[in-house]
Amino acid sequence: MDSVLRQSKAMCPFMKKATAAGLRAMSTAPPAAHMAVSPCGGAMSKLQVLARRCPVMGKAMAVQSARMGHAGAFANVAGAKAGLSTLHGHAKTAKAKLHTSRSQEAQAVEGSVFTGREKVQLPPRLATKPPVSASPAAATRASAPGTHATKFDYEGFYNCELEKKHKDKSYRYFNNINRLAKEFPRAHMATKEDKVTVWCANDYLGMGRNPQVLKAMHETLDEYGAGAGGTRNISGHNKHAVELEQTIAKLHAQEAALVFSSCYVANDATLATLGSKMPDCVILSDSLNHASMIQGIRHSGARKVIFKHNDVQDLEEKLAALPLHVPKIIAFESVYSMCGSIGPIEEICDLAEKYGAITFLDEVHAVGMYGPHGAGVAEHLDYEAHVQGRPRGTIMDRIDIITGTLGKAYGCVGGYIAGSAKLIDTVRSLAPGFIFTTSLPPAVMAGARAAIEYQMEYQGDRRLQQLHTRAVKEALGERDIPVIPNPSHIVPILVGNAELAKQASDKLLQDHGIYVQSINYPTVPVGQERLRITPTPGHTKEYREELVNAIESIWTELGIKRTSEWAAEGGFIGVGQADAVPEEPLWTDEQLGIAEVTKTLLQDAKAEQKLNSNAPLSGGLTERLLEREIQGLRSASVAA
Amino acid sequence: MDSVLRQSKAMCPFMKKATAAGLRAMSTAPPAAHMAVSPCGGAMSKLQVLARRCPVMGKAMAVQSARMGHAGAFANVAGAKAGLSTLHGHAKTAKAKLHTSRSQEAQAVEGSVFTGREKVQLPPRLATKPPVSASPAAATRASAPGTHATKFDYEGFYNCELEKKHKDKSYRYFNNINRLAKEFPRAHMATKEDKVTVWCANDYLGMGRNPQVLKAMHETLDEYGAGAGGTRNISGHNKHAVELEQTIAKLHAQEAALVFSSCYVANDATLATLGSKMPDCVILSDSLNHASMIQGIRHSGARKVIFKHNDVQDLEEKLAALPLHVPKIIAFESVYSMCGSIGPIEEICDLAEKYGAITFLDEVHAVGMYGPHGAGVAEHLDYEAHVQGRPRGTIMDRIDIITGTLGKAYGCVGGYIAGSAKLIDTVRSLAPGFIFTTSLPPAVMAGARAAIEYQMEYQGDRRLQQLHTRAVKEALGERDIPVIPNPSHIVPILVGNAELAKQASDKLLQDHGIYVQSINYPTVPVGQERLRITPTPGHTKEYREELVNAIESIWTELGIKRTSEWAAEGGFIGVGQADAVPEEPLWTDEQLGIAEVTKTLLQDAKAEQKLNSNAPLSGGLTERLLEREIQGLRSASVAA
Repeated sequence: MDSVLRQSKAMCPFMKKATAAGLRAMSTAPPAAHMAVSPCGGAMSKLQVLARRCPVMGKAMAVQSARMGHAGAFANVAGAKAGLSTLHGHAKTAKAKLHTSRSQEAQAVEGSVFTGREKVQLPPRLATKPPVSASPAAATRASAPGTHATKFDYEGFYNCELEKKHKDKSYRYFNNINRLAKEFPRAHMATKEDKVTVWCANDYLGMGRNPQVLKAMHETLDEYGAGAGGTRNISGHNKHAVELEQTIAKLHAQEAALVFSSCYVANDATLATLGSKMPDCVILSDSLNHASMIQGIRHSGARKVIFKHNDVQDLEEKLAALPLHVPKIIAFESVYSMCGSIGPIEEICDLAEKYGAITFLDEVHAVGMYGPHGAGVAEHLDYEAHVQGRPRGTIMDRIDIITGTLGKAYGCVGGYIAGSAKLIDTVRSLAPGFIFTTSLPPAVMAGARAAIEYQMEYQGDRRLQQLHTRAVKEALGERDIPVIPNPSHIVPILVGNAELAKQASDKLLQDHGIYVQSINYPTVPVGQERLRITPTPGHTKEYREELVNAIESIWTELGIKRTSEWAAEGGFIGVGQADAVPEEPLWTDEQLGIAEVTKTLLQDAKAEQKLNSNAPLSGGLTERLLEREIQGLRSASVAA
Repeated sequence: MDSVLRQSKAMCPFMKKATAAGLRAMSTAPPAAHMAVSPCGGAMSKLQVLARRCPVMGKAMAVQSARMGHAGAFANVAGAKAGLSTLHGHAKTAKAKLHTSRSQEAQAVEGSVFTGREKVQLPPRLATKPPVSASPAAATRASAPGTHATKFDYEGFYNCELEKKHKDKSYRYFNNINRLAKEFPRAHMATKEDKVTVWCANDYLGMGRNPQVLKAMHETLDEYGAGAGGTRNISGHNKHAVELEQTIAKLHAQEAALVFSSCYVANDATLATLGSKMPDCVILSDSLNHASMIQGIRHSGARKVIFKHNDVQDLEEKLAALPLHVPKIIAFESVYSMCGSIGPIEEICDLAEKYGAITFLDEVHAVGMYGPHGAGVAEHLDYEAHVQGRPRGTIMDRIDIITGTLGKAYGCVGGYIAGSAKLIDTVRSLAPGFIFTTSLPPAVMAGARAAIEYQMEYQGDRRLQQLHTRAVKEALGERDIPVIPNPSHIVPILVGNAELAKQASDKLLQDHGIYVQSINYPTVPVGQERLRITPTPGHTKEYREELVNAIESIWTELGIKRTSEWAAEGGFIGVGQADAVPEEPLWTDEQLGIAEVTKTLLQDAKAEQKLNSNAPLSGGLTERLLEREIQGLRSASVAA
């Protein structure tokens, strides 16, 4: 099949011009055609529609159709997909189905072609027949009694949508994970006896079991009850909301803040509101932005300009092409959660100023984790200024809109925006997603505030989280396991295949009692499937050893590519790329307070290696450092 | 001004055809024009754009513009609004500003007209100047240095948006209401000493302080911590989610259910997903549907057909005009929260079947409150069948998608959908608003489940809630206070003026320690402003008397219209309408178990009235009934 595809690509002027991504998009276009008859058969792709117009393919399809007696629209789509997916390196299924047909129903859909995206305008109160096809045979069928009088088959449609998810391996199987507050980071599965270690939660600092957070929640529950009882406007506004928003504003050194049900809602509602209200607004969006921002931009109806991930030059070109007076929002993230990359915040602020844009920075995966008060990466970039309590003029101060979550490092639930008083009041006054929804429960808001305040004063959790992250990355590196390099707390392990990623995740759970969800398309691009590991302060040495050993054995068992194998192929998304610039962690040794110890340890290690030059340096540097710290703590407690 | 407007309406072919609502929409169109120069001045309405094309108005505006030297676009808008609002009966502000100008900046915006809705297509990477106006003067200004190089004034824009909210009295002032679990329905304001009675919360049954709910939450908090720690797919799926969804499915006798952050998100995500995925889907929407459904429909991009509120005939006409095979969703509510009306569920199910549509029923204000198990109005309509545990073939069984909330009668937070297993799995698999958001905290899910189960087994709360509602409605009726008639638990008191409604709400709070939020535009149409009162089982006799007396005195003090006054004007939205069909409560005397007692009480009352025929029947029937019940309970406890 590969060679057929390559030949087509060489010969066909259409294929020559088309990109692989474009072809895939066309081949996975939403279900189409006369769904009333057969929702599944109706899954005719845009690519297929085009193929039918092609003098070569169109004839081939017609011949095949006649030979089979039924055209197999569905099979063709499956075939196109299988063929195309080989362009992306890992297709192993469905090839055999190319140009075979599937079912009787498939034929009926061939006649009338309307895809979900290319909407047919139904004249109001006129069209009472289904669209009639150009094909005479189909037209006859369509006008036959019983056919055009058929109701839409909703259950068939659901079935078809689910079938597609199964086929492209993006169907999600949820694991029943009950995280135990008193045994963090352990959880039980469906039964209480069946325990596992959680290695992929976003409760990054274990604040979900923090005694001060729980105390605040218990007390608030007793005093103010379970729920808020209304929207913010109608009896759901209370001191917990006021105090939480004040705390958030203080955290980010902004004038005001606004709390939402989630940061998904915060991002969606804020971008949709601003983008739709500001006349001719243009939203410039990083290509790896989270779904919530993508939805918010879509819902705004504003013009969207996507710039290459973290590419300041591309962004500047796009900004320069827009009129200066037009309102612009640059939407981006600090830590991109699936690869751990970090946005060029300062440079984007510079560009925003230069071109009259405002900045919308999503710090969802960074709040609590970076900066001396846990305000995020923007705070971290002016570490010393913020330690000294001088936020004015810092990068964080220059950001117009910061959004964050209360559901990850702060261990609760909910999201927020922070910014100028007028901005916040505008979103508060206009965003339906804020106005028309019940407030978060008082206990949740009290717990979240306790978590933020705790993390504003205490550096220990995020410091330990960083050290554990370093230890895990080092240990995996030593075993030739492909960690996608990044400067943050995320440990993405490249698998590069949906099926293998799921198998690895399943095996970790079943054979090793370790829970790491596999991350597949559409969360990451096809071919970039991964395991995403998130160490916490609770992931002590035994857990880390268990994890690294388990991954090692699974990588061998399933024959998943090692870093050296990726390197032999020239490297991929930073893995095994010889020319890649090394990714230094954002938290420096100085900021972690380990600069001196590290120096000593490094000297020791070098001496050790000198003595025994054949043995590799066993045990990562950070692991040694952590051991030393624990010993220090132990002897201190013995002395006391 | 009124007479000018009436004359215009009579003379002008455009005005003759335009509806008041249409004109208002045009006059309040989002800010427009060259915002770079002046965001506020840019608020040129669509109406104004049209007016400029009119041979009469256009000339008048030009003359005025020349006379003033600056055209006062903003003042014109304000004037148009003031004039239009008189069409709705209560305009008291801004009239004086008609045809006066405001500021120097306003002139600059006149030249280039582009509203937020009629987007000007900016050629990518080309347009670097602001749009040039047709007016030569404006063109000169636009090309002058400094003008087209001006950045957009974001803070000015926010100011302008807020200014508009203040002007049309839709700016919201939140009241700090801290509902006290141990003193339900009391709350404290900013300070703990400042206590009030809450009469407008949606914790309809007081489940927010229910001991079983609180117990479940405390226990879950201790065992499983504060937050879920991830999305449902990545470590946020747990037994609490599984059990809650099973309970919800059982409650509604549907195959499956899915929980969201809120019912706003549930409605938005479900309609947006289905509407966008089903090819050529049409969504038929009740004209009074909640904002969350309106947003969901908008976000789906599907064709939207609005049918008149609760008008089955109008709906049928609209369904009949659509092709049978096209997928259709009929989206409506059971209890409309702002007027208390109830949707014709059975008739809509019939139509859905006839025309091949599916039904999407929002039971947000009904779950917990209606039906023998609290499943909502759909359950209530087959009361006996559900008492006997025979849901098959009932109206509830015929509904395709039921949506509900955990944040109102169930006292917690969160929302859900229930339906067929395939439907639920499809939304679960496709809706970004479900997929990409952190799960609700385990404790919230456990609490919500406890609340649902409690209400499935116990009828007492909703029965008492209904009796208290009847008592309040009767007492207000006796005092000639205009309650908008409805068959549900909502007590909407018509004020009919935004300013007066806010004053009444403020006076209730300040002078009487009673919290009832005023409901203004855009939540209700202009001219239908109201106080919305929600009795609960906790609103015992003393509270009810306090409330009715306070309202009585405020109605006198502020001179707000009584029912008899509305009647003298021919009535309005059911108030004082002689020909209105009486609204019988959905909960019948039999279902409330008071049929016998009521009969006796009625006889007593009649005898009393016979003895003293001049005195009106004092104290409502329900108030007497409640007193009798309490006496009965007291003597029972004395005997025991």
